[in-house]
Amino acid sequence: MNVFETPIEVRYAETDQMGVVYHANYLIWFEVGRTKLVEQLGLSYADMEERGYLAPVLEAHVTFKRPVTYGETALVRTWVKEYDGLRTVYGYEIRNQNQEVCVEGHTSHVIVRKGTFQPVSMRRVFPEWHNIYENVRNETAPM
Amino acid sequence: MNVFETPIEVRYAETDQMGVVYHANYLIWFEVGRTKLVEQLGLSYADMEERGYLAPVLEAHVTFKRPVTYGETALVRTWVKEYDGLRTVYGYEIRNQNQEVCVEGHTSHVIVRKGTFQPVSMRRVFPEWHNIYENVRNETAPM
Amino acid sequence: MNVFETPIEVRYAETDQMGVVYHANYLIWFEVGRTKLVEQLGLSYADMEERGYLAPVLEAHVTFKRPVTYGETALVRTWVKEYDGLRTVYGYEIRNQNQEVCVEGHTSHVIVRKGTFQPVSMRRVFPEWHNIYENVRNETAPM
Amino acid sequence: MNVFETPIEVRYAETDQMGVVYHANYLIWFEVGRTKLVEQLGLSYADMEERGYLAPVLEAHVTFKRPVTYGETALVRTWVKEYDGLRTVYGYEIRNQNQEVCVEGHTSHVIVRKGTFQPVSMRRVFPEWHNIYENVRNETAPM
Repeated sequence: MNVFETPIEVRYAETDQMGVVYHANYLIWFEVGRTKLVEQLGLSYADMEERGYLAPVLEAHVTFKRPVTYGETALVRTWVKEYDGLRTVYGYEIRNQNQEVCVEGHTSHVIVRKGTFQPVSMRRVFPEWHNIYENVRNETAPM
Repeated sequence: MNVFETPIEVRYAETDQMGVVYHANYLIWFEVGRTKLVEQLGLSYADMEERGYLAPVLEAHVTFKRPVTYGETALVRTWVKEYDGLRTVYGYEIRNQNQEVCVEGHTSHVIVRKGTFQPVSMRRVFPEWHNIYENVRNETAPM
Repeated sequence: MNVFETPIEVRYAETDQMGVVYHANYLIWFEVGRTKLVEQLGLSYADMEERGYLAPVLEAHVTFKRPVTYGETALVRTWVKEYDGLRTVYGYEIRNQNQEVCVEGHTSHVIVRKGTFQPVSMRRVFPEWHNIYENVRNETAPM
Repeated sequence: MNVFETPIEVRYAETDQMGVVYHANYLIWFEVGRTKLVEQLGLSYADMEERGYLAPVLEAHVTFKRPVTYGETALVRTWVKEYDGLRTVYGYEIRNQNQEVCVEGHTSHVIVRKGTFQPVSMRRVFPEWHNIYENVRNETAPM
C-alpha cells in the first residue's frame, strides 16, 4: 500500500477557543500531507509551478470525528485514491497519538495553466507524474 | 426564502501564490456567513458558548468553481439547508462581484457540551433556536 | 487629523485556546486598516500590483495591551505616521467596543519591483500617491 | 550559547500573492521556535496551561530582510534574550537554506492567570522554569 505519513505538531495558532484545532486547518494539513507524498515520489510541486502550471483544488470533503488538541503530534496519512490521467483524488486520514482516527477526507485536483486556469492533461504535460501516479494509485482503502 | 447575505472584502493575507484566495479560507468565510445568519435571526453563538455549549463542525463539503481574487468583494449566501432538532446542515454559496458562483458547499453541526464534546438535543436545550430553525429551514435550494 | 477607521468583527477562526484573538492576527487587521486607508484616499493597492510593484513590510512593531474576544466588534484606526518619498510608516491603534485601546503598533514599507524586490522611489514612480501621502502625513500622534 | 534551532518547511497556505511567505506568518514561526525551545529545556507549555496559567505576548518586533519562498526549508533560531523573574524576552532569527538571515525579531511575555489575565511571578509560581531560564539566558547576541 502506498500510504505516505507525515507527523504534524499542533501549533498554538491552529487552535481556537473551543480548545481544539480549528476545523479549516485540517485542509492545510491535508496539503502538508499531499506535498510530502509528492516529494516522497521524487516529484516537486514547486517545479510544476515554475513550468507555468498549478494544481488547484476542485472539491474537498472532510469528516471531523474527534478533535486534535495542542500538545499532540498528529499523523497525516495520504494516498492517491483515484487518478485517470486528468483528475487526481487524494485520500487523507489524520490520527492522534493513540492511533485514533480524528479526521478523514479527500480533495480532487486538476492541473491548469497559470493565468488562464485552463485545465490540461497530466498524462500529456507531465508524463513522469502520470507514470508514477498510475503506479501508486490505491484501488482499495488503506488500513 | 431565508437566505442571508454577507459581503466579504478579500484580505491580502487570504491569497496564496496562485494569486487567488487560498481554498481553506472559504471554510472561514462559511463561518462568517453562518455567524451572520445566527445574528440576523436574533440569536447569539457567543451566548451559547457562555452557557457551556459548542457547535463544532461534523462534516464539510466544498466545491471550488472559480477563484476569487484580491481587490474583489465577495458575497457569502447562507441558509439552513436541513434541520432535525439535533443536527443542522448549513448551505453556502459564494459569489463574486459579477454574480458568478465561485464556491458552493455545506457544513453539518451538532451542539455538544464544552469539555466532554457530548452531543445534546438542540430542540431540548435551546428551544428558542429550535423554533426559529424549524421556521427558516429551506426545503428547496435557494436561487 | 487624517485617521481612518475600519470596524472588524472578530472571526471564530481568529481566536486561540486562550479564548482571545491570536496575536499574529492583529498584523492582518493592521493590513485591513491599511487597505481601507488607501481606498479612502482614492488609491488602489491592487492597481499598484497590476503595474508591477509591491509594497512589502520591512518592519513591524506591536504592543498588546488588552485582549479582544469573539463576539466583539473592534475598530482599527490607521494613519500615515511618517513618509519621506521612499518609505512609509503606518501607525495603528485597535480599540474594543468600550473605546479601550487593545493593540498599538506600526509597520514600515517601501515599494519594490515585482520579481526583483528592488526598491523604487514612491515620489518618482507613483507621484499621485506621493502627493496624497505628503498631505495626510500626521506629524503628531492621533487622539 | 543556548540557541535552539527548528527547521520549518514552508506551507503553500503560508504564501501570499507576492509569491513569498506572508509576513504575519513569521510570528507563528516564532511561536513554533519558542515551543521547541521550551520542549528542549524539558518543560511543557501545555502543562502550564493545565495548571491555569497562560503566557501571552506583550510586545513583538519583527524586521523583514529577505523573503522566504515555497519549496524552501527555513530554520528558526530561538533564545532567551532577557529574563528577570517576571518577564521573558525571546530572540529569534529565521534563516533560509543558504544560511542568509531573512527575519529577525523578539517577543516579550509574562505569565498570567487564565480568566483574569492577572500577571504572576514566574520565579514564584514556576520555580523550575525560573531556574532553567536563569541558566539559559544569553547575555550577548547569538551568532
